[in-house]
Amino acid sequence: MPSSPIRKLVPFSDAAKQRGVKVYHLNIGQPDIETPKGAIDALQHKDIGVLAYSHSAGYLSCREKLVEYYQRFNIKVTPDEIIITNGGSEGIQFAFNACLDPGDEVIIPEPFYANYNGFAKTAGVVVKPIVSVIDNGFALPPIEEFEKVITPKTKAIMICNPNNPTGYLYSQKELETLAGIVKKYDLFLFSDEVYREFAYDNEKVCSVMNLQGIEQNVILLDSVSKRYSACGARIGMFVTKNKDVYATAMKFAQARLSPPSFGQYFTEAAVDTPKEYFDAVLAEYIARRNCIVEAINNMPGCFCPKPKGAFYAVARLPIDDSDRFCRWLLEEFSYESQTVMLAPATGFYSAPDKGKNEVRISYCLKVSDLQAAMKCLEEALKVYPGRVK
Amino acid sequence: MPSSPIRKLVPFSDAAKQRGVKVYHLNIGQPDIETPKGAIDALQHKDIGVLAYSHSAGYLSCREKLVEYYQRFNIKVTPDEIIITNGGSEGIQFAFNACLDPGDEVIIPEPFYANYNGFAKTAGVVVKPIVSVIDNGFALPPIEEFEKVITPKTKAIMICNPNNPTGYLYSQKELETLAGIVKKYDLFLFSDEVYREFAYDNEKVCSVMNLQGIEQNVILLDSVSKRYSACGARIGMFVTKNKDVYATAMKFAQARLSPPSFGQYFTEAAVDTPKEYFDAVLAEYIARRNCIVEAINNMPGCFCPKPKGAFYAVARLPIDDSDRFCRWLLEEFSYESQTVMLAPATGFYSAPDKGKNEVRISYCLKVSDLQAAMKCLEEALKVYPGRVK
Repeated sequence: MPSSPIRKLVPFSDAAKQRGVKVYHLNIGQPDIETPKGAIDALQHKDIGVLAYSHSAGYLSCREKLVEYYQRFNIKVTPDEIIITNGGSEGIQFAFNACLDPGDEVIIPEPFYANYNGFAKTAGVVVKPIVSVIDNGFALPPIEEFEKVITPKTKAIMICNPNNPTGYLYSQKELETLAGIVKKYDLFLFSDEVYREFAYDNEKVCSVMNLQGIEQNVILLDSVSKRYSACGARIGMFVTKNKDVYATAMKFAQARLSPPSFGQYFTEAAVDTPKEYFDAVLAEYIARRNCIVEAINNMPGCFCPKPKGAFYAVARLPIDDSDRFCRWLLEEFSYESQTVMLAPATGFYSAPDKGKNEVRISYCLKVSDLQAAMKCLEEALKVYPGRVK
Repeated sequence: MPSSPIRKLVPFSDAAKQRGVKVYHLNIGQPDIETPKGAIDALQHKDIGVLAYSHSAGYLSCREKLVEYYQRFNIKVTPDEIIITNGGSEGIQFAFNACLDPGDEVIIPEPFYANYNGFAKTAGVVVKPIVSVIDNGFALPPIEEFEKVITPKTKAIMICNPNNPTGYLYSQKELETLAGIVKKYDLFLFSDEVYREFAYDNEKVCSVMNLQGIEQNVILLDSVSKRYSACGARIGMFVTKNKDVYATAMKFAQARLSPPSFGQYFTEAAVDTPKEYFDAVLAEYIARRNCIVEAINNMPGCFCPKPKGAFYAVARLPIDDSDRFCRWLLEEFSYESQTVMLAPATGFYSAPDKGKNEVRISYCLKVSDLQAAMKCLEEALKVYPGRVK
């Protein structure tokens, strides 16, 4: 399994700290938002005698609560269509392992979340990327691009909506186009919707669970990590109406016995988090997004599409090599004893030549920090030795 | 991934309940012992603002506490030799994925924990079983048996000590024999020591971490599930002094981001569980073991070696087919409206003809329940239609 290019930067981040430079971490998706107190309280007041295994699919009471959660988004599922997983990560593994054999292929629009690659590789699955481009904000590539790479070994298409790393939110129309391909070639459609709550400008996330005619093809991958700022809970969901896929995934679930009980107690209560919590979070993230998008688009030679979801943006910068630039920011640059840590977009593409002039920016910090970070970026681009034209 | 034969019985257990028969569950390793209150309290009083990802290897503070725990067993490790995993299960996956390529072989003395098979299969690894036998209490098979199955594709030997399902505790001498083979053929040695605390009759568990001359070959797999009756915490450990193996396993750890934070808060405090807790647990398990071993050895035609560890025993019964017998117990038999659920030993062997007259008994119930369960078993064997001579 290859190392993520984001992680390769970690030693350089330490180097920045060693030379006394403050680093703004725009490289990772760890929200700084407070976890809902009510859900933490519920766990902390629960009477626990014997901390036993839960059902391998998770406690029924927790799955029932999740059914209630999904209903709010008009996603109609039953408790026996849900497997609670060790974070969203395990759901991805279950999808690959349950639906694809080694050597089978999955099509993923790139740039995509780097760890998809690792899980695919571990399952012996071959990722066939098709390129989405920054100029149209990373919209779904046209059907022809999918059809070009479909072979008899193609078993699935995987999307992330809203998207990490691009922040792109697929429209109902784009998803229907996707459904057409899925139906025509009888593929599975894996949809990672962990950023469902992070949709801006009055947009709504359309779930693949509501696409007509492909109900048996769809697997929804989900997690509480971003939704409740609870990355440490390690609670995800694998959801499907396909009973055969469910049964196969359950064998993998049974082998690892059960998902974490503490995290399930938390999750069950978290479903009752009041709407005001999300309203406040959304307002905060819109301000953050606007801050970085406006700042970058005001920098000469830079372009950042305005994403409608998640808390990431990919920006095009006038640089020779995003890996080198990001390393340089940490090793050599500082502005008023501060610098910024970004994720080179190369890590989100499979082709080695892609993403060299793009970076992913995670806007998980408060606006004043983002402003300071953007100032660093602006000053850095003025003096970076590898600046192009 | 094949279904476990233990789980195949679950519908029949429901059938027993439907006909109003009480079922004593001696089929699963879910301890009924109370989880240490102090560790639950520590989690429930922790001030948690943002429930963030921990380090992919687990919180340093938790790994430091585990170092302290291991020192008590004279196992000398450092925090950067430990990866905290999603239960012991994930540690097994990391071991297979980090040390073996698809097609490589691992030797495991059987009967063995059925899920090893599932994890091996998922990793594309081939299990080469060698048979240990009930007549000598399932001692380590002789060296010749190992050497018979060693091929150029053999990369590892895996043991479970104390053993699930046999309860066998490997002696220092047996482990040294194993170390000799490991060294001679330059293999990895995976040792699942999750039952370390459950060693009876003043025996001590010898850890593979203390075997001389194979320090770079050894991977210790561990968990808090049984130790603290905390199966739902999903906290395990992958421990190795081999830096290359550690680095490779870390890539898998990083892909799934982090182990559960709540479980780590619990674990960190659980290391301080007072000795009295374990003394009481041990006394209880010795009474339970003695209860079932004596009862079975007093039944005509039955034999149960007296295990020195874990909380399982494998017994030989005068029956035609343990799968059929265990199903019959649930579907047809009752004694004073009670019956017993056992695990057919067939599920712990890879050859289809093995274990047909053996069952695994998990003694996780209190003595009065075990006595009632043993009475059921005794009466059942008198009338079972498939009884042999």
